[in-house]
Formats: sequence, structure tokens, C-alpha cells
Amino acid sequence: MKRLDSTPKKDGFRMPGEFEPHRGSYIIWPERPDNWRLGGKPAQHVFLEVIKKISKYEPITVCVSREQYSNVLNLIPTNGNVRVVEMSNNDSWIRDCGATFVVNDKGALRGIDWTFNAWGGLVDGLYFPWDQDDKIASKMCELERVPRYRLDDFILEGGSIHVDGEGTCMVTSECLLSEGRNSTMTKRQIEKVLCEYLNCTKVLWIPRGIYNDETNGHVDNICNFVRPGVVVLAWTDNKKDPQYAISKEALEYLESEVDAKGRKLEIHKLLLPKPILITKEESLGVDAVDGTLPRQKGDRLAASYVNYYTVNGAIIMPTFNDPNDELAVKTLQELYPDRKIETVYAREILLGGGNIHCITQQVPRG
Amino acid sequence: MKRLDSTPKKDGFRMPGEFEPHRGSYIIWPERPDNWRLGGKPAQHVFLEVIKKISKYEPITVCVSREQYSNVLNLIPTNGNVRVVEMSNNDSWIRDCGATFVVNDKGALRGIDWTFNAWGGLVDGLYFPWDQDDKIASKMCELERVPRYRLDDFILEGGSIHVDGEGTCMVTSECLLSEGRNSTMTKRQIEKVLCEYLNCTKVLWIPRGIYNDETNGHVDNICNFVRPGVVVLAWTDNKKDPQYAISKEALEYLESEVDAKGRKLEIHKLLLPKPILITKEESLGVDAVDGTLPRQKGDRLAASYVNYYTVNGAIIMPTFNDPNDELAVKTLQELYPDRKIETVYAREILLGGGNIHCITQQVPRG
Repeated sequence: MKRLDSTPKKDGFRMPGEFEPHRGSYIIWPERPDNWRLGGKPAQHVFLEVIKKISKYEPITVCVSREQYSNVLNLIPTNGNVRVVEMSNNDSWIRDCGATFVVNDKGALRGIDWTFNAWGGLVDGLYFPWDQDDKIASKMCELERVPRYRLDDFILEGGSIHVDGEGTCMVTSECLLSEGRNSTMTKRQIEKVLCEYLNCTKVLWIPRGIYNDETNGHVDNICNFVRPGVVVLAWTDNKKDPQYAISKEALEYLESEVDAKGRKLEIHKLLLPKPILITKEESLGVDAVDGTLPRQKGDRLAASYVNYYTVNGAIIMPTFNDPNDELAVKTLQELYPDRKIETVYAREILLGGGNIHCITQQVPRG
Repeated sequence: MKRLDSTPKKDGFRMPGEFEPHRGSYIIWPERPDNWRLGGKPAQHVFLEVIKKISKYEPITVCVSREQYSNVLNLIPTNGNVRVVEMSNNDSWIRDCGATFVVNDKGALRGIDWTFNAWGGLVDGLYFPWDQDDKIASKMCELERVPRYRLDDFILEGGSIHVDGEGTCMVTSECLLSEGRNSTMTKRQIEKVLCEYLNCTKVLWIPRGIYNDETNGHVDNICNFVRPGVVVLAWTDNKKDPQYAISKEALEYLESEVDAKGRKLEIHKLLLPKPILITKEESLGVDAVDGTLPRQKGDRLAASYVNYYTVNGAIIMPTFNDPNDELAVKTLQELYPDRKIETVYAREILLGGGNIHCITQQVPRG
């Protein structure tokens, strides 16, 4: 397919909100034993549950390494909504390494292929190398038969942005201004690239993401657009938790801002689960490999219900076996009255460093 | 996608003739250095020419290993008709290891996933292992989002069959009754499987294929259906050539037979090029690897114009820098008055053991 030298804004394309209709979803099958415990088997079964739930609502493409191909083909539900394709990868965070799709008013679809450097490259990236991950976006564009905008000199992960589809983009300064990404660029220069490729006119800069989030605080773990003008924000009322100051700072920032259309934001708090730590047993199941972030006993995981995924007609929400699980379902059901709230017990995804939103990527309906 | 336990005949599906409309084509990028000389580079450039010519007429999916992915993406024409997908393989004969597609009257499409054993398995197969090749058919079905009939206990290559789409299948006894394939089955049992899966009522058993054809004489190198009732047959008038007796035997057999509809066949001779031998230089460019058929100086190659590929609106025909090239173009142009005859100088494909038909596979329009 074609590689484009223009930009989406110049060509009349925009990134739609995740809540707009999808053509389908993508996911990458997890396997690397230095990130996923016990050879990835517990995580694989949770990914399978996510795949099954998504496939009730829209087609999903499961990308899988050559080594896991037969296993996945045998495991996967054989309904017409799930297809399995071979795709080499370094890990399974397609939200971050995958294509960001844009659409125009005539129903055409195109992909953005940002440069991916494993959340910080040689500065503070989470593994080395990331060469296969950086090819995922182009492979998705080829599979979908759509032209591709490739940015060779701008590093971005899909989980570090959210858009409302009406001109507003939301990021965190912690991530977008991190040293391991585009550190030679100013904030204004970065904003200009975002606006040009996502076709936005306003960028909301939330200061920080969830406490101890190894992605340098991706926005998709702390805040999301429910629809234009309405956001959910990860929240805790426990003032002793380091998360409290982070969430409060985000709240105050968002309250002080307007979106691209000049609207004040309607902000809904989504209460976090209690802190979740890696157990000794969990830590022992992970290979220790030089150059890969270790998973150590007692490390606090960046658990957040905000890391849910919006599909056609449903929300796929992580649960943590926490008293707030039920409250999160209730909150989201009120915010999304027309969607079914589907839950997946997601500790095994969390142990790998992210959650349901991080492992999925939507292809908007063109 | 679904794996089906039924058969195409039971489900009302049939294999259409190659000359019926296509949804598109598939090809696998060549690279193995123990089959393709000089690291596959000369062959790759000829494959690229085949891809370019096919893409003028219909969409084509280029399947490529992880190692060659970037190279191919940079080489490939960036028109909307060519997509590149990652697919592990043992070599590049998608006619033989790929899916055979069947359609029904309502426009639905399904795939047949025969067992592939590299043209003879441990008896006289051409390389070992062939595990990745045997997964190609299922991967094609997944990509096309179609259900799949898998035959775990029947070995067949797509190049060993041709159909007229009206109930007639054409094979060679040399191949279908070879020791390295379904040697525990009788001819009648093999015929039954063919009829059940291709939805045929008549199998034409040409005795032998082209002289020294390493596939055990695939039919697609010696004979093809131009349309129902009309075939082309590879021919030589040189009685000293061992090919003469083979072609004559085939002619006499075909003249003595009728097709599924009871028609006598209209048989057109397609004159072969002069014998083509591997040169010393060509032989020296191929890695010598245990278990892979060697490419030795002086070996006669199974060159035949019959190994052309029929696409929407065109014929992609191999040439050999032989005086008969022109005659072959003329013969095919007369047989296919409504299609453009596109030629590709195909010695580099031939050196790998097959030709344009062997490296392509059609997906019929559902």
C-alpha cells in the first residue's frame, strides 16, 4: 500500500474518538517469558477472554508470532468475528506500537505509523530491541489495505493520546515531554505534530499519569473521553496515597481548561482499586533478562479502571477482585447507558505492565 | 475462522476454473538460499515483475517472511492493489502449499487446506522440514476471513490439479499415484476425495507430466483448461526428446476421453521451448544443504509455457528467450482473445523448480 508524505490534516483526515463506530479491533498474543509469567500461559488465557468478549461486538484480528500460531488457532473461538494472522512482535501492546487510524468524511481510512521505541528507547525503554514492534503499524495498514503516514522522526505510543474526535487531544506532560522520546523538541513543536496528524486544534496537557506507571504515565491509564465534553478521571480519596496528589493535580488542570470547541469539561471520577503489588510467586514466574524491566516482588502495579476499551455496543473493563470493581461497573454503566459493561479479571495483564486498553487497538469504520 | 468437518460437495461448494473471476491473487516472496541462487536476489526481481503485472489486473497479497518484510515493503509498487503480509514459509510455491478456494452459488467463499509434504515427504520430498508451508493454507483462509476444510490425512498440492469448474478435474497419474503422497489409497479412493472436495464428477488421469519435473509431474506444467471443453497441451515435435512420448501419450489419452459434461475435448498444442539446462554459474550460486534437492550444472529444467497464470483480463506467461516464445504468445492470444498476454522472462523462477503458475494462487470472487 501507499506511503504518504502529506499529513492527515492536509488531506482532510482526523482521528475519531474511540467511542465512534469501529470496523474492528486488533490484539497481539502475549508470550515473552521475561515479561509474562509462566511462559505467558496465565496472561494468554486472559487475553483469550478479552478476545472472546470483543468478538461478541465486532471483528477482531489476533496477531501472533510464528511460534504461537498453531496454539492460538486451536485455542481461538471459531466464530466468524475472529481471525488469526501471523505477526512478529517484541511484546503485545498494540495500543502503543500499532497504527493510529484516521478517517475522512467520505468514509476513507488511513493509518499513522509513529516511530515506536519501547517507551523510552535507550534512555528508559522497557526492553531491547523493539524492531518488530516498530513494524506492527505498517503491517496493520497492509492488512487493512490502507495508505500509511510514516513519521520517521517522531516517537509516540497510541496509549499516550486520547482524542474526542472533535478537535481535542489529551496527553500527559510526564510522557510526551519525557527524555526518552522527543527530547529535542519543544512542547509547542510536539503539540504541532499532534494537531497535524490527529487533526486537532487543542491539546490538553494533564501533568502526570498513574503512580508508578512504567510507560512514563500514559494518559490512557488516568483519563479518557466518554464522549466529546465528558471525561472520566482515575481517582482516590486516600490522601496518603501518592496517587492522590497526581489525580488532584489532573482534576484541577482539567477544571481550568476548555476543549477545542470551548466547552468546560464534565469530569467524572472513577475510583481506583486499592494498591496492587507483585507477589513473590508472580515475580518468580518471570525470566530475568538483561535489558528488560524486571518484575520484582512488592512492586506496585499501575492498576486503573480507566484502562477500559470501548467497542461497538460495549465497554471491556478490567476488574481486580477489589471492592471498587462493582462501583466502577456502576459508574461506567451510568456514563455509557447504551453500552453493555463487560468485565475481565485482569490481574495477569496488569502484571505485564498495562491493561485492556493497552493491549487493544481500534480500526474506525471508514 | 471456522474449521469445517463437512466437504465442499456436501455444502454446495465447488472449485471454479482459474479463468472465472478472481477476488485476487497470492504469492510468496522467495528467499531460501539453498534453492534460489545468489541469496534469492535474481528470483526476487522476477517475482517483483510478476507481482507488478498481476497488480495491473487484480489485488495481490505478497506473503513474506519476517526477515524480508522491510526489504519487500521498500521494493514493492505502492499502488492500492498490492499488500504485503508477514507469513513464515519454507519456500515460495503457494500454488502447492496454499489454500484451494471453493465458492457456492450465493457468492460465499471457503478454503480447502490439504496436507502438504513438500512433494513427497520423506520418500522423495524436495526439502525438510515443510512445517511452515503446511500452515500457509490456514493463514490464507484467516486473512480472507473464510471457513476452512482441513484434510489431515490427504496429501495434495494445488499444482497437481486443474478443474474446468463444470465437474471435470485433471491430474497426472505420475503425481497423484506417487509413493510419497497417498500411497495407501487406491486410485478410486483418491478420485473420490478429489470429487468430494472439488465438487467434480469426472477425473481425467493424464499419465505423466513434463520430463524431469521434480514435482512428480504436476499437471499444471503440461496441460490446462482454457475454458470448459478446451485444453492446451505442452508439445514437442522432436521425437528424440524424451518429452515427445510423454506429450503424445497425454494427447492420445485426452483424445480418447470426454469431460464431466460428456464433451470431447478440443486440444491445442503449445510448443515447448528447447531444453534448458542449469549452467555452472547458476549452480554455484545455490547453497548446498543436506535434505534439499541440489541444483546441479547440466540438469534439465522443466520449462513449459503451459505454466502460465490466468488473472482477470490477462494471462501472465513465462518466456525463456527461445524462438518459441513468440509462438506461445500467439497461440495463447488466439485461445484467449479477450485477455492481454503479459510475458515475464522467467528463467530465474524455472531455476527454482517451477514457474509462474506454481508461484501464484487465485482467490475466486465469492
